[in-house]
Amino acid sequence: MENRPRVEVCFTPNLYPLHMDDSEIVVVIDVLRATSAICTAFHNGIEKVIPVSSVEEALSYKEKGYLVAAERKGQVVPGFEFGNSPYSYMEKDLKDKTLVITTTNGTKAFHTAKDAKQVVIGSLINLDAVCEFLLKQQKNVLLLASGWQNKFCLEDTICAGAIADQLINSGSFTSNQDSSIAAKYLYLSAKENYLGFLKSSSHRRRLKKLNLNEDIKYCLTPNQTDVVPIREKNYLVNFK
Amino acid sequence: MENRPRVEVCFTPNLYPLHMDDSEIVVVIDVLRATSAICTAFHNGIEKVIPVSSVEEALSYKEKGYLVAAERKGQVVPGFEFGNSPYSYMEKDLKDKTLVITTTNGTKAFHTAKDAKQVVIGSLINLDAVCEFLLKQQKNVLLLASGWQNKFCLEDTICAGAIADQLINSGSFTSNQDSSIAAKYLYLSAKENYLGFLKSSSHRRRLKKLNLNEDIKYCLTPNQTDVVPIREKNYLVNFK
Repeated sequence: MENRPRVEVCFTPNLYPLHMDDSEIVVVIDVLRATSAICTAFHNGIEKVIPVSSVEEALSYKEKGYLVAAERKGQVVPGFEFGNSPYSYMEKDLKDKTLVITTTNGTKAFHTAKDAKQVVIGSLINLDAVCEFLLKQQKNVLLLASGWQNKFCLEDTICAGAIADQLINSGSFTSNQDSSIAAKYLYLSAKENYLGFLKSSSHRRRLKKLNLNEDIKYCLTPNQTDVVPIREKNYLVNFK
Repeated sequence: MENRPRVEVCFTPNLYPLHMDDSEIVVVIDVLRATSAICTAFHNGIEKVIPVSSVEEALSYKEKGYLVAAERKGQVVPGFEFGNSPYSYMEKDLKDKTLVITTTNGTKAFHTAKDAKQVVIGSLINLDAVCEFLLKQQKNVLLLASGWQNKFCLEDTICAGAIADQLINSGSFTSNQDSSIAAKYLYLSAKENYLGFLKSSSHRRRLKKLNLNEDIKYCLTPNQTDVVPIREKNYLVNFK
């Protein structure tokens, strides 16, 4: 009888109902770039992040005077100040402010996990901090990759594999899904050179076309912050 | 401008609508064990295979006197002579007969691809033969892994990665989906030792419990036959 908690990987939001089972904590991952941007915002002092699904919802917050970010297809939606480039969250004074954000994939994944007991924001830039948080909780974890419009994407899977690998190697977690095994293998193939491994990935090509190479490099550099954004009601706060 | 045909990988039948796009040939893959069993049946002289979705449909064929196979959850359905063990298709005289078959995942994937222009049955045991067929066609190919109840499974993905790798290495195919890149990487990690690589896979554990280790070894041994089962109307015949 296996008593250790499980850590499993779900490749895309549309597969979530098949994987939810007995998971108590869902980690939402959108490496390029929503969850990396959210972690960066917390690292730079923001107090609260409200993820919303639609541009319309984001607009209604904007009209109420909120700081609002909206990204679709890799670009800032016209009329909004921010998109999901992490760099935009370094330049402004965000201390104690609230940010409202909608993105193509990441905020969708966040809402997919709405029934989960706990939701955590994961990325490579806060990798060790998220693992430390999960190791303390000792509960079943589902790592939810945001993908690209419900298609599998490499960078989120590799990040999920990195988290799974760390939890399993601690000896206190187990996993039994093939998706988790695959994510671990892909992480092990990628970890020496994320940028090289992902050179042909569809999302990297997409962002490269938009001149977002600096964003990519930043998002693929592990452990730049120890923030752990977690859900509280319908918004995120930093657990630390 | 890229003029070469594309070879892409779809991890599970429920993701098929996202991947179909402009594919002209769909290769259905269910390594453990439906497509391996179907290839074995053709290798042993069967003339025609009719994949059906439900046990009820299989039963109605049985009542009409057909040779009928039915598998659910890895086991032969009570009342049927065959399941999806490839070994059962070696023992009988199948020459020029018609086989009706329903399985948990493989026949479902076959029906998922019902609108595709052409459907081919792929497995590791007919790997090179399928690749040779596809190289001659020079059309866009979608490799459809059957998965396990719509969940990702390693062995089908590795087989898809093996086919993708061969077509891309020929220089006459290209691919641009992250799922295809991942399948290729997983194949490259697995190819020296399929059995070892899959030792912790969920399906292998499932079949091992059912004492099906010999089946697993057989299904993971590439290039034992040169049959290429292709769809004609609602049934399969050997292209060769």
